Amino acid sequence: MNDTGRQMHLAVFAQGLGAAQSVWRSPRTEPDKVHTLGHWARVAQVAEEGKLDAVFIADALNLSTSIGSDATERPDPIAVLSALSAVTSRIGLVGTSSTTYNQPFTVARQFATLDHLSGGRAGWNIVTTAIAAAAGNYGSAELPEHEARYERAEEFVEVVTRLWDGWQEDAIVLDREAGVYADLARIRRLDHEGGHFTVRGPLTIPRPPQGWPLLVQAGSSPTGMNLAARFADMVFTTQFDIKDARAFVDRMRELVTAKGRDPFAVAVMPGVTPIVGRTVQEARDLARELGDLVRPEATLAFMQQMFGGIDFTVYDLDEPFPDVRDLLPPHASVSRPRLFMAMAEEEGLTLRQVAQRIGLSTGHRSIVGTPDQIADELATWFTEEAADGFNLMPADLPRGLEDFVEEVVPRLQDRGLFRKEYTGSTLREHLGAPAPEPVHGNGPSMAESK
Amino acid sequence: MNDTGRQMHLAVFAQGLGAAQSVWRSPRTEPDKVHTLGHWARVAQVAEEGKLDAVFIADALNLSTSIGSDATERPDPIAVLSALSAVTSRIGLVGTSSTTYNQPFTVARQFATLDHLSGGRAGWNIVTTAIAAAAGNYGSAELPEHEARYERAEEFVEVVTRLWDGWQEDAIVLDREAGVYADLARIRRLDHEGGHFTVRGPLTIPRPPQGWPLLVQAGSSPTGMNLAARFADMVFTTQFDIKDARAFVDRMRELVTAKGRDPFAVAVMPGVTPIVGRTVQEARDLARELGDLVRPEATLAFMQQMFGGIDFTVYDLDEPFPDVRDLLPPHASVSRPRLFMAMAEEEGLTLRQVAQRIGLSTGHRSIVGTPDQIADELATWFTEEAADGFNLMPADLPRGLEDFVEEVVPRLQDRGLFRKEYTGSTLREHLGAPAPEPVHGNGPSMAESK
Repeated sequence: MNDTGRQMHLAVFAQGLGAAQSVWRSPRTEPDKVHTLGHWARVAQVAEEGKLDAVFIADALNLSTSIGSDATERPDPIAVLSALSAVTSRIGLVGTSSTTYNQPFTVARQFATLDHLSGGRAGWNIVTTAIAAAAGNYGSAELPEHEARYERAEEFVEVVTRLWDGWQEDAIVLDREAGVYADLARIRRLDHEGGHFTVRGPLTIPRPPQGWPLLVQAGSSPTGMNLAARFADMVFTTQFDIKDARAFVDRMRELVTAKGRDPFAVAVMPGVTPIVGRTVQEARDLARELGDLVRPEATLAFMQQMFGGIDFTVYDLDEPFPDVRDLLPPHASVSRPRLFMAMAEEEGLTLRQVAQRIGLSTGHRSIVGTPDQIADELATWFTEEAADGFNLMPADLPRGLEDFVEEVVPRLQDRGLFRKEYTGSTLREHLGAPAPEPVHGNGPSMAESK
Repeated sequence: MNDTGRQMHLAVFAQGLGAAQSVWRSPRTEPDKVHTLGHWARVAQVAEEGKLDAVFIADALNLSTSIGSDATERPDPIAVLSALSAVTSRIGLVGTSSTTYNQPFTVARQFATLDHLSGGRAGWNIVTTAIAAAAGNYGSAELPEHEARYERAEEFVEVVTRLWDGWQEDAIVLDREAGVYADLARIRRLDHEGGHFTVRGPLTIPRPPQGWPLLVQAGSSPTGMNLAARFADMVFTTQFDIKDARAFVDRMRELVTAKGRDPFAVAVMPGVTPIVGRTVQEARDLARELGDLVRPEATLAFMQQMFGGIDFTVYDLDEPFPDVRDLLPPHASVSRPRLFMAMAEEEGLTLRQVAQRIGLSTGHRSIVGTPDQIADELATWFTEEAADGFNLMPADLPRGLEDFVEEVVPRLQDRGLFRKEYTGSTLREHLGAPAPEPVHGNGPSMAESK
């Protein structure tokens, strides 16, 4: 069925107990275990049994006000992924880290360490932090403007990647006779002085096994897509319509080409929440069961964050979804709000209906159906090049992922669309995304600068 | 032999391949494995077999210029310890993190996450970073002055601990019927506005299992001791002489008492490098074998850092150790340089001899002898209250630790000085250091501030 040999990529976006809001209320979940290593290990191990490319851990730098009704805690992704490196052996480990509230030397070192510990399985999801409340935890009252955040992000990623490039692959010599541990001529400083950062280098650990850990980007604004085009190996996006998704892929490939990179080395992976049932009725029952737990009030707080602070509680839940385009503040993310307004308009949805749909899949697309229906849908998007793969956002974890791995993955494998065994050992090998040739800094080597 | 029931505490200070400089040249080490999880896991697992209180990972935020001849890489401690949480079950996991080059919200979250993942085994070694080269990796040319660093450190630790206190232990309610995940009245903001930090809170994850992860401090300057007296549960110190060590313990207990804390709840643990042999001759042979690998040139670079930038290469290696007291820059750590100058004066050592001694134990005391001799020496210091325990700094890892665990630990156990089995499950339980009563912020609860 798949003559091209092109392979689908799958990651699981692991957010606590799953993507569906209030899913902790379902007997399918074990909310008392969400803070334990056991919970995370189970998710990662099921994903590895399914031969997925990666586990992907989201983040937020503020506690959501919906914590009263929902499990919205956020542990530190580097800590969780590092622990997972010890209980898995092949699957990629992707974590979110903010360029607005970190320093590049720290982030370069964390992901390099994770890459060493995991034998080349680390990935960094580059975010600029779009939630205003995070600013209050990092010393300022206001979130920087969207463009200013991306300007900083671009310089940040540049510094991080050049820190990774600062050590040549063969810098460690280990000549016991001569007493030469490392060749100083093969370790270079960076001496970066930019608008946002001054970083001398070199990094405190050798070049990561992957060269560069995988780079992931999720912003769908023009500025976000531009950053992705320059750096990303994987693009995480929200897409509801196959035509729009195809256009997004095309646009992304154009932008990547314009940056002088191979457009097919960048995997565009929309988020999708699969609700799997043995029959259509069973899948619909499960969707309703989980959907019933979504209280619109809880989702409205999430929507308020997503829409840059717009208060939806002033609107009637059972009236048509309000047009809030003119209310979006200048620093807000614009891609997802725009998408939901278009969807509500097209399908004529009420505020309650939009809230419940958002509540089931954290604002992404959901597919409710049998394993064959879900495999069909994913295969269609994939073969029509509306996606290179998918970031799976199971409504509940680990069960929703178990259902997918047991029922849907074998069907994708049977169609020749997805690997039956890992063929590589690094995340870049899983994705078919080799690291760029190293650029060895513009500073002097440690031999010259001693 | 131990009528008091007082128990010795032991941690292993795990620095790459061990404390001895150039030890990678010894066939006792496997330098090609130092960046792998396997190496770290072996060290932690041997330490756990020995029922040690903790594994302790040092850090540095710059690459030492001695990387040419020595294994001085520094991976990110939180990443390494998180991985170790998955391959151990009882031993404490202590990591160094700088208050000068991090943000308190980040550090609070990292150690809280490690504490959750490990079931209450996390510890934070609070350092202010004394090495000038680190500043260049974090945007500024100069290291802040010693006093300024400690002023920032004090506010930093205050913010971190209050973030941990922001969630009450019983904040997570999990009432599925009523749809109440957490009680907002039991999660408080911090609303901290100080000289260095403005932090709103609350933290993104619940109160750590230990309340506060264990706090460790290693500065022996008056300012450092003052910070330790206020916050530390474990004090890591350099001591060569039992009388001086006893005076340090007394002084520390006075300072702790003055802060209104129980002076016996703070464990003073000097660093010590045990060189174990079945016979005295075997131990001395091993010490010489490892000492011969130390090239004074390599150690001089380390001494330059330790002495705040003083260049020792201008002195004759075989002349008496030079008096450099007047050359110490104002921002330098003063405790260790002073100690070595005193030692050189007392014993009449040449620069080469000081360099080799420093090179074997990273500037700490070494004990070369049979298992009984080493156990005697540690027991004497312990029973005379010159120490509450020791930070073991094996010259080579993991072998030097294996020797200690196999030969010395059983002798300490036979004397009733050290546990034969873990009795608690958290690091605070191992140390007998309960967390302070929580102070629940001065900001409004999430219920009030919604």
